[in-house]
This record gives sequence, structure tokens and C-alpha cells, in this order.
Amino acid sequence: MYKLVLIRHGESQWNKENKFTGWTDVDLSEKGVEEAKEGGKVLKEEGFKFDIAYTSVLKRAIKTLNNVLEEMDLLWIPVYKSWRLNERHYGALQGLNKAETAKKHGEEQVKIWRRSYDIRPPVLELNDERHPALDPKYSALDTKMLPGAECLKDTVERFLPFWNDTIAPSIKEGKKVIIAAHGNSLRALVKYLDNMSDEEIISLNIPTGTPLVYELDENLNPIKKYYLGDQEKIKKAMESVANQGKAK
Amino acid sequence: MYKLVLIRHGESQWNKENKFTGWTDVDLSEKGVEEAKEGGKVLKEEGFKFDIAYTSVLKRAIKTLNNVLEEMDLLWIPVYKSWRLNERHYGALQGLNKAETAKKHGEEQVKIWRRSYDIRPPVLELNDERHPALDPKYSALDTKMLPGAECLKDTVERFLPFWNDTIAPSIKEGKKVIIAAHGNSLRALVKYLDNMSDEEIISLNIPTGTPLVYELDENLNPIKKYYLGDQEKIKKAMESVANQGKAK
Repeated sequence: MYKLVLIRHGESQWNKENKFTGWTDVDLSEKGVEEAKEGGKVLKEEGFKFDIAYTSVLKRAIKTLNNVLEEMDLLWIPVYKSWRLNERHYGALQGLNKAETAKKHGEEQVKIWRRSYDIRPPVLELNDERHPALDPKYSALDTKMLPGAECLKDTVERFLPFWNDTIAPSIKEGKKVIIAAHGNSLRALVKYLDNMSDEEIISLNIPTGTPLVYELDENLNPIKKYYLGDQEKIKKAMESVANQGKAK
Repeated sequence: MYKLVLIRHGESQWNKENKFTGWTDVDLSEKGVEEAKEGGKVLKEEGFKFDIAYTSVLKRAIKTLNNVLEEMDLLWIPVYKSWRLNERHYGALQGLNKAETAKKHGEEQVKIWRRSYDIRPPVLELNDERHPALDPKYSALDTKMLPGAECLKDTVERFLPFWNDTIAPSIKEGKKVIIAAHGNSLRALVKYLDNMSDEEIISLNIPTGTPLVYELDENLNPIKKYYLGDQEKIKKAMESVANQGKAK
């Protein structure tokens, strides 16, 4: 009935440096730009078209989308950017190295922060320069809306209103939709679409720059889902995401 | 009271080849990308910020805007794309070399097509593959809305509704606006803002990639206008636009 495509941004500077990123607005690495272009190429080869695109207000997702659309000769379609598609806010962990944090706090604690459904990482103070209340991107929003740290449950809760009020209706209108976003905002959507339990979502990893296609029925229930591209490479990419929190 | 910034896209592949482009969706040249980045840098240096951006559905304008916003770290602001900001439609001249056309039809005729206010170039037939009715970009629009050729008067008439209904209200709301568009859609706006006669607009040329700042009063009447950047270079760029229609 409907097809929806999700794409996680390509490698960022901080993915490369193995740092907790969250809402920090870091750029794509050169590899990340290449991944995005590859994603666009495979979508074009497979005959995909889009009528509208959604992304976050973070440049690594926006630039991924722009590169995908340029490869598909679709730069002209409408693009909506929302903070509700941002990555999970990593609180006071933002900017810290994942392996060093694991050494300091233990792999188990880092695994909890990274992968538990409802335990928040340490929260940023409102006067911390990393707090979104001090970022012009969010100046139109009530400070009470802005997280100082999020668990995945929080990310699900702030993402879902945008899905239900904006994205889902546009799919039901017959628009072909692509969403370019982040590891955890996309996990939030996958959990919701696939009706996954809080436990199941913990072990799900989404590789970067790889289009994930959902075929949905008229009520937007998934009929089928699959990644586009080299299946062996995709499997390896998913494993590499899972291993980032190890102390090495 | 208000500041509005206009920027004409950087050099395109066909500017370089001296061809009539119009609605043909040609890419920026490498030089064009550099011009756009330069435009973004000077805006950043001069302390400009924007809340919203408007552009056409043609990639040379969209990519110019994306490069400007990236330099300014403003990729996250909303961007609206409208066919009403497209370049003037050059009809059956699209794809022809300007100097060759001048040799064939005479410099005077080409000057009339390029610079007269209300004489259209030869019109494209509806079944010509270059006609916008056959382009998916415009499939949501009534074919009767879509030009087979435009004089500048036509461009003014199709651009003004977008200015009056969308852009002008957003400026009056206090939003800081940038418009990334084309030689002739920007001339249409300049004619309207500066209340220029049909004769005066003929000799006005807008250089590529160079931010044009308007300071406007509360009724959006211009108080002052100026280009940002090296003034000597800007003067040369304006003369080079004026000379493109010569047979050489």
C-alpha cells in the first residue's frame, strides 16, 4: 500500500572519534558524505521517488538528506526540519569518549546509559553551555520542552507527536516520504511501527547511510521491511554500532 | 526597520557555456559553488542571521542557498521552495548559445528577447520535451499556470503573488529573510521594491553570488540598498552580465 524510507545519517566527526554526540551539532565526516551519496544512488537505482522529506535540525541529518536528494535529482521537493527528529539527548555525556567513559564508569553502566529504555544519562544543568535552552535553534520553544538528558523512552515520547500529527497523515495522503534522522530517533519510530517491547528495541541497531524501506498497509502497519544495498556489508555495520560502548 | 537579503545563484554550467537557461535545471559550476560559499562567508562576517529562507525549485538556486546556510551554520532554518521564484522561462531559446543566437538573429533581436520588458521569446509547444508541463516538479500545478515562454513582465506577475502572500508577511512578522533566486526573478523583485519603470529595469544587472541587502521601512519601502563584498569586483560582475548578449 505505502512505502516509507528511513535513513540514518552517515558517519559524523564524533562517530569517528567515538564520542557521545546527542544534540551536539557536529558535521559529517568525509566518509559520512560518501555514505549519504551511496544511499542516494541505491535509492535512485531501485527506482524510488519522494514527494516530501523530513529531517532533524542537526546538520549531520540535513546534509545526509541533501546529499541523498541531490543524487536522486530531487533537491526541489519540500523538506521539513523538526527538533522532534533530533538524536536522543545524551545529557552530560555529550562530548565524552565512549570507550573512556566505559573505562571510568564500567561497561555495564555505559551499556545501561546507551541501551536501557528508561534510564536517563546524567542530566545537563539549565546553565550548562551545552543545554539546548541556550541554543538559537530552539529559541522558539518553551524551555520546559527542552531536555537536559533523555532515555530512549523520552525520545519516543517527543518524536511520536510529530509522527502522528505530521508524517503519518502525509503518508496516508499518498505522499512518498523519506525521513533522514538519527540512530535513536529512528529506533523510536521502528519500535512504534513494529510494536516492539522495551526489551526488544535494546538490541536493535540501525546502520548509517543505509536506506531502510517499510512497506505499510492502509493503517500504516508494516507488511515488510528491508535494507537496500549490499546485505553482507549492512550486517557488519549493524554489529559495529553494537560494539561502540565496549572499553576495548 | 527590516533587513532583507537577496542572492543570485553562483555561476551555473550554462552561464559558463553562455547558453539561455531559463527553467532548465542545470547544476552550479565549481566556480558557482565557490561563489555561493563566498556569499555565505561575507554574510557571516557582517553578522547577518536569518530565520527563514526562500528559493526556487531549480537546483542552482537551492544549492547556492544550501552553501550559504552551511557557511553561516544555519542549515537548520526553514527553507521554502517555490516555482514562483524560478528564473524567467526562456521559451524555445532554452539550450541555445547566446552568442550564436546573436549571430543568427542579430544582436538587436537578442537584446530585445533578453532585456525588453514585455516581448516574449519564441514560445515552447506544450508537447516540447522542454515544456514544464512534462516535468514532475510542476505536476501539482494546473498546466494553464505553466509558461511556455516569459517576458520579464510575465515573471513579475507570477512572482508577485508569492511575495505578497508569503514573503512580505513573514518580513512584517519580524522574520529575518534571505531569498536565493535568479537574475530575472530577483530583477522582478527589485523593480517592484524600488518602484522602477519598465525602462529602468532593462539596464539593471545583478551579479552572481553577491548578497544584496535591502533596508526596508515598516511598509517595506526601501530606505537603503547595498551589495556586500568587494565593490570593485561587484561592478565588474555587473558589466559582465550586461555583455553576455553580444555576438563577440
